[in-house]
Amino acid sequence: MQMTLPEEWEGFKTGKWSDGSVNVRDFIQKNYTPYDGTGEFLAEPTEATKKLWDQVMDLFKQERENGGVLDMDTKIVSTLTSHKAGYLNKDLEQIVGLQTDKPLKRSLQPFGGIRMTQNACRENGYEVDPEVVEIFTKYRKTHNQGVFDAYTPEMRMARKSAIITGLPDAYGRGRIIGDYRRIALYGIDLLIKDKQHQIDTSLVRMTSKNIRLREELAEQLRALQELREMAGIYGIDISKPAKNAKEAVQWLYFGYLGAVKEQNGAAMSLGRTSTFIDIYIQRDLDKGIITEQQAQEYIDHFIMKLRMVKFARTPEYNELFSGDPTWITESIGGVGIDGRHMVTKTSFRYLHTLDNLGTAPEPNLTVLWAKNLPRNFKEYCAEMSIKTSSIQYENDDLMRATHGDDYAIACCVSSMRVGKEMQFFGARANLAKCLLYAINGGVDERLEMQVGPKYRPVEGEYLDFDDVMEKYDAMMEWLAGLYVNTLNVIHYMHDKYCYERIQMALHDRDVKRYFATGIAGLSVVADSLSAIKYAKVKPIRNESGLVVDYEIEGDFPKYGNNDDRVDSIAVMIVKSFMDKIKKHHTYRDGVPTMSILTITSNVVYGKKTGNTPDGRKNGVPLAPGANPMHGRDTHGAAASLASVAKLPFSSAQDGISNTFSIVPGALGKDDAVFAGELDLDQLKK
Amino acid sequence: MQMTLPEEWEGFKTGKWSDGSVNVRDFIQKNYTPYDGTGEFLAEPTEATKKLWDQVMDLFKQERENGGVLDMDTKIVSTLTSHKAGYLNKDLEQIVGLQTDKPLKRSLQPFGGIRMTQNACRENGYEVDPEVVEIFTKYRKTHNQGVFDAYTPEMRMARKSAIITGLPDAYGRGRIIGDYRRIALYGIDLLIKDKQHQIDTSLVRMTSKNIRLREELAEQLRALQELREMAGIYGIDISKPAKNAKEAVQWLYFGYLGAVKEQNGAAMSLGRTSTFIDIYIQRDLDKGIITEQQAQEYIDHFIMKLRMVKFARTPEYNELFSGDPTWITESIGGVGIDGRHMVTKTSFRYLHTLDNLGTAPEPNLTVLWAKNLPRNFKEYCAEMSIKTSSIQYENDDLMRATHGDDYAIACCVSSMRVGKEMQFFGARANLAKCLLYAINGGVDERLEMQVGPKYRPVEGEYLDFDDVMEKYDAMMEWLAGLYVNTLNVIHYMHDKYCYERIQMALHDRDVKRYFATGIAGLSVVADSLSAIKYAKVKPIRNESGLVVDYEIEGDFPKYGNNDDRVDSIAVMIVKSFMDKIKKHHTYRDGVPTMSILTITSNVVYGKKTGNTPDGRKNGVPLAPGANPMHGRDTHGAAASLASVAKLPFSSAQDGISNTFSIVPGALGKDDAVFAGELDLDQLKK
Repeated sequence: MQMTLPEEWEGFKTGKWSDGSVNVRDFIQKNYTPYDGTGEFLAEPTEATKKLWDQVMDLFKQERENGGVLDMDTKIVSTLTSHKAGYLNKDLEQIVGLQTDKPLKRSLQPFGGIRMTQNACRENGYEVDPEVVEIFTKYRKTHNQGVFDAYTPEMRMARKSAIITGLPDAYGRGRIIGDYRRIALYGIDLLIKDKQHQIDTSLVRMTSKNIRLREELAEQLRALQELREMAGIYGIDISKPAKNAKEAVQWLYFGYLGAVKEQNGAAMSLGRTSTFIDIYIQRDLDKGIITEQQAQEYIDHFIMKLRMVKFARTPEYNELFSGDPTWITESIGGVGIDGRHMVTKTSFRYLHTLDNLGTAPEPNLTVLWAKNLPRNFKEYCAEMSIKTSSIQYENDDLMRATHGDDYAIACCVSSMRVGKEMQFFGARANLAKCLLYAINGGVDERLEMQVGPKYRPVEGEYLDFDDVMEKYDAMMEWLAGLYVNTLNVIHYMHDKYCYERIQMALHDRDVKRYFATGIAGLSVVADSLSAIKYAKVKPIRNESGLVVDYEIEGDFPKYGNNDDRVDSIAVMIVKSFMDKIKKHHTYRDGVPTMSILTITSNVVYGKKTGNTPDGRKNGVPLAPGANPMHGRDTHGAAASLASVAKLPFSSAQDGISNTFSIVPGALGKDDAVFAGELDLDQLKK
Repeated sequence: MQMTLPEEWEGFKTGKWSDGSVNVRDFIQKNYTPYDGTGEFLAEPTEATKKLWDQVMDLFKQERENGGVLDMDTKIVSTLTSHKAGYLNKDLEQIVGLQTDKPLKRSLQPFGGIRMTQNACRENGYEVDPEVVEIFTKYRKTHNQGVFDAYTPEMRMARKSAIITGLPDAYGRGRIIGDYRRIALYGIDLLIKDKQHQIDTSLVRMTSKNIRLREELAEQLRALQELREMAGIYGIDISKPAKNAKEAVQWLYFGYLGAVKEQNGAAMSLGRTSTFIDIYIQRDLDKGIITEQQAQEYIDHFIMKLRMVKFARTPEYNELFSGDPTWITESIGGVGIDGRHMVTKTSFRYLHTLDNLGTAPEPNLTVLWAKNLPRNFKEYCAEMSIKTSSIQYENDDLMRATHGDDYAIACCVSSMRVGKEMQFFGARANLAKCLLYAINGGVDERLEMQVGPKYRPVEGEYLDFDDVMEKYDAMMEWLAGLYVNTLNVIHYMHDKYCYERIQMALHDRDVKRYFATGIAGLSVVADSLSAIKYAKVKPIRNESGLVVDYEIEGDFPKYGNNDDRVDSIAVMIVKSFMDKIKKHHTYRDGVPTMSILTITSNVVYGKKTGNTPDGRKNGVPLAPGANPMHGRDTHGAAASLASVAKLPFSSAQDGISNTFSIVPGALGKDDAVFAGELDLDQLKK
């Protein structure tokens, strides 16, 4: 980019990151200081922190008392530069920036859908300004409108019956992580230069694909300029690289703030920032220009801001996700591909906010767990987990193999290389319901309407395993095609009407896109098929011949007991559905992946699924993610985990979740041992 | 569509058009009455017509006195349903409907570009409402903005230097003819049913192409519903088919009115309506429910409305097109593929408006001339032409061969099957300037900047034909690629941000798209190359070595004298450029065509072209279309026409224009013979 390096980079080891290309990973690898010590060095919250946090707690209280929402914007459409500066207490805040002009005031984001925006407001006693409604009805089409324009009747039916569920057609897809670190490291000027270079070197053969890319890059460039303007509203110039730790945290946060001003996504994750920030803090500490207390204060105030991120959401959204989570996932720790662990003092500082500010589900602090993490850090994590129940763990050893050492988690489990990969989020296909469709020849068991194809239903007094499997295979084939095509519509329209400008501006030009699909009801399917195979299952038909219930004679192996007879069925279903997904054209050549992951929505999905052949009753929640059905894993925790661990990651690369509650005492006498031993990867071998 | 035919169709011969498919051509062919007589039957204008027309003439006068524009909407964005009903004199008007609520008040159409809209207003002393500006800046992107987001620097330069000229990136492309007759014949209800059927039978494999089509069809369906609403504002229900002639004219006009409310296109043509309308008039006359005077009154009032169509246009547009033409082209006459001519009494009635209302350039009444048109009609045309100079003629025998008998002309010469084909209009590449680029190695002779590729410029004291041709061929190769790619951007963005909903709603689902390109400066190129080949041309260089002028020693054959030595150069250039155009990917698989057609814009193009090797001076207008350069066709009219007629239609299917002024006396003694003899097709043999 230039010959002389910016003075803000003084003290950093140079490398590929400083030779004219944007390369945050290289910067981190060249400059971070692994930390093997304990958390003894950590500082208490400052007076300012305590005062500010009391204020936030008070606001949260007011919010709860107010029915869940404190205030809503009904007139100003949220853009990067729509609002004047907002503060908690300007004099005390080290890190500034709010989504609107007032804390906890939810912003107005109608680009995804004006009716949803209206519903979200109405639910809380607000009414969107009629002029805004007019603009987004008559002049500016929304994502939701676009999707419903292109949906087929079959897609609408599958959505209504909930065989495809929770689709991001009435909420933002999220799952895109801008590389917010780039702003701190390079400053907006260099990022604009780099974006301009991306444009200048883009294909000039004007196919629709290339035109789309060129337009998106132009939008991204504009978003970078507007982000600089946004920072300017707070009196801060982010043109140049951050010159110290405080600026680095602030620059980075501004990037994230821009993202949440523009997008009301279902998971607006932060990335992998702690080790990056640590480099700045360490430099300042080394220079003696800040104290540990100041360093912790920056992090505390940053995390405080993240805890205040709120969106206006619809009742349907809140039902699906059991509240209005933001999934601001921050990925901490992990091991580098050179073998050095990536834990730094700031990894501790991030987790320490759970002490300084108290526990909270957001931001979603996620430890990238690896065998080679330092023992002290593992123990610290375990201690904090036991104290706060607020840490998520994911298997770094597994993900590093395919994703390297600069990936992060979006939402709960979706991993992606920061700034290089993104995900088209695709919610779930309900495989339990699909089994019922196979049995009933495509007729929905609750709506009593033909939703799937009119294949032959099962006949006879008892269900026959081979017969049901053949029918199920065909029905999954149909479902996979419909599902992928539905997602194609959603993502085409999201790009068209609700494009993530600033988030994509903080990506490379040529991004790898994961086309994420997901399944729900795996354990119900496995157990149902096991029952049909190993016991005798008698279908009960209603007066119109529809199978609406099942009588099971005899016992059968159940998923979650490390019993290969049924676990192999679960494995086969996962592989088979993923194979069927792969057969279809995906938007923007997205690489299909699948998740077995529901943490809350399984309740809603279960509500819409009739009686199943495993004995589960109509409306009863499905098990979350890849969990065994509640109470059926009778052979202990290890056997239960072993069943889950058999599921092939290669067919479910977007992640497998197992919600696992455990009484700490059951695992041993010493608290600190807990985390070290509970290593899923061990079980996989 | 249904079993029992609508009562409005009583008296019509049924056929494919009435069996559930939309097929206006079949209706016409089954039901029209060819007319071989004279114009004796034609009726004088009614008192109402005279009164209304006086009113319009007075409004036109006011408009002129007001500097060209009478009134402008600055607040209400024009949509199908944006305005309340507008009238001249409600009691007298047989055919109603205005673009806005007041006659000659220009509507506000910012979807193409907000800055152009502002310029158009400002030029006339108006200011667009700031709220509208905000909406179309912050929330609703426009066609113009989209285009400039995707343009490459090379495209911007080529546009600036005007080697590519008059691109529809700052005005609406037009050239799309809705089949407005469908509304009269079927009514909105059946058209919606048909559109729904198109949607129901659309591809469900969700590629981006298919998603785009599905969304467009949904938009079209909505536009049909809104058109019904628009008619309702005038108290008229267009749900059912038109039941008489007055309704047929009114229904049809409402379709057209909807189009001009939504689109400010550079040519908003009407189609081929006279013979269609004649069927309704004839039925009413046969039933004795209307008189000839009433029939003529419908047509007079209809044409009056078309004459009142106005758009808000920018100074640049007016300069390019020498005014603000609307090109409401109506195609009259022609011969059917069964050999029957298609002239009806209403063909006369349309032309007769030139008597009843006086002459006018709009609507652009275009006779599809054929050898087999009835003699009486030919004579009537000739008489009207001599009297009014307001009729355009085009060669039906030539176009019928490829387009059948239900095509119409959009703008001046672009032919397309009504409701089945449309055109992506592409303005012109300036081949004269391209020749100068070949000589100067891509450096623009006026800007003195590198615009084209840095090929080697010519060297030496005199231009060598083979050397120049080789360089010219390479430069045309570059220009063709750049030109097509530029048009790809324009049409992608026009579809995305300024889609012609109601016009496309009146098309079949699967439309053939012509990808129209055009060339300017053909005769300058032919004569320049002829000079280089047959005389001696000495390039004059400026101090920086750029060739800026030419000295010609000796004489050379000039295009327009039926001299094959130079005419063959013109033919070769046309073929060669078209071949190069064909090599490139075109948006939506558009079928590339080319026109040699400039009627007014050649003046602007010439202004931006330096001295040329044929002796033409810097800034002097290029010849229009395929015309010889003014004054160089020294061998008489027949020789001049013969040169033009050599140009291959197969390489210029979008039309070849030859602006030809003639002293009638020179052609013979009898006025009526004129049209019969002047048959370009004869010359082509």
